[in-house]
Amino acid sequence: MSRALDQLIAALQRLPGVGVKSASRMAYHLLQHDPQGARHLADALVQAVDQVRHCQRCHTFTQDEICDTCADPARDDGLLCVVETPADQAALERTGVYRGRYFVLMGKLSPLSGVGPSDIGLEKLLHRLQGDAGAVVREVVLATSFTAEGEATAHVIAQLLKSRGVKVTRLARGVPVGSELEYVDLGTIAHAYADRR
Amino acid sequence: MSRALDQLIAALQRLPGVGVKSASRMAYHLLQHDPQGARHLADALVQAVDQVRHCQRCHTFTQDEICDTCADPARDDGLLCVVETPADQAALERTGVYRGRYFVLMGKLSPLSGVGPSDIGLEKLLHRLQGDAGAVVREVVLATSFTAEGEATAHVIAQLLKSRGVKVTRLARGVPVGSELEYVDLGTIAHAYADRR
Repeated sequence: MSRALDQLIAALQRLPGVGVKSASRMAYHLLQHDPQGARHLADALVQAVDQVRHCQRCHTFTQDEICDTCADPARDDGLLCVVETPADQAALERTGVYRGRYFVLMGKLSPLSGVGPSDIGLEKLLHRLQGDAGAVVREVVLATSFTAEGEATAHVIAQLLKSRGVKVTRLARGVPVGSELEYVDLGTIAHAYADRR
Repeated sequence: MSRALDQLIAALQRLPGVGVKSASRMAYHLLQHDPQGARHLADALVQAVDQVRHCQRCHTFTQDEICDTCADPARDDGLLCVVETPADQAALERTGVYRGRYFVLMGKLSPLSGVGPSDIGLEKLLHRLQGDAGAVVREVVLATSFTAEGEATAHVIAQLLKSRGVKVTRLARGVPVGSELEYVDLGTIAHAYADRR
């Protein structure tokens, strides 16, 4: 084989979810069918690493001091939604039902992986709620994942904020739209029953 | 979001098997947890595209005129194994049973995708068998995939070579080692029965 090819296969394995077989397939594909795509990807990687940073207010990725969502004057400053990732934020945005501000943790509490409160910007979140911008926040909506780690993260944030007198809500647990009850897991049905309305 | 981030997510989708969700996850991971890995990948991409080319003799990827396998004087020039990809070649090499030369098609015939004989280097293969190096080839072993396209490729090559008086063999079809007959597909069992020994 070739050293440059081996190094490319090794480098591709730093991508999440990519093992040695996928990495080989990707490398062969780029070299054989899409060298232009490979150069394009190299440029995009360098550009992104050089230019993308965290929004000073909500912690999401942006190229500016303040991201577009935080800079948008039409949004409700009284609502602050806490999500784990920009992808979660994007999912909520696509629903079109939320017009408040965001705080993006860029992770979740995970003691087993060594991710503690300081790694997910909780101090920044508290600082934001205490500063000028936070003076008007009426409600913090916790939209972390409904997994063990996401729930633990939501719990810790809820405790922190409630002790400071902030109103905290959580997205509802329940049966997903379009599902047949027969195929929904028992924990979900139990929650949906308890929170019936 | 950010233009550089959007462009990175778009560029990552040029990798085979990567859609918009995986690409987003990869981009967030690199920016949040592994910017060094992103730079490293960018370098590896450029290095590989600049340095890797096709071996003059077997058509596989290499950085030199002739790849290591073709340059190895200890290999049997009388055997030539035809495989679809460097990954297939590597799989055969790991078995340790084959000590001849290779010819790597870098693809397979696929009329539906517009891949014809000229795209998989069949002329180069014929040229090789006719040239000085080919004078001593006793047997060509066809080791293309046992899929419809791989079988068609093997068939076309076999016809070409047999008409030129070259001995052509194909890897045996049969029951995989370690399998219980109950779970093996019928076509495989039928082939294993026909080729029993």
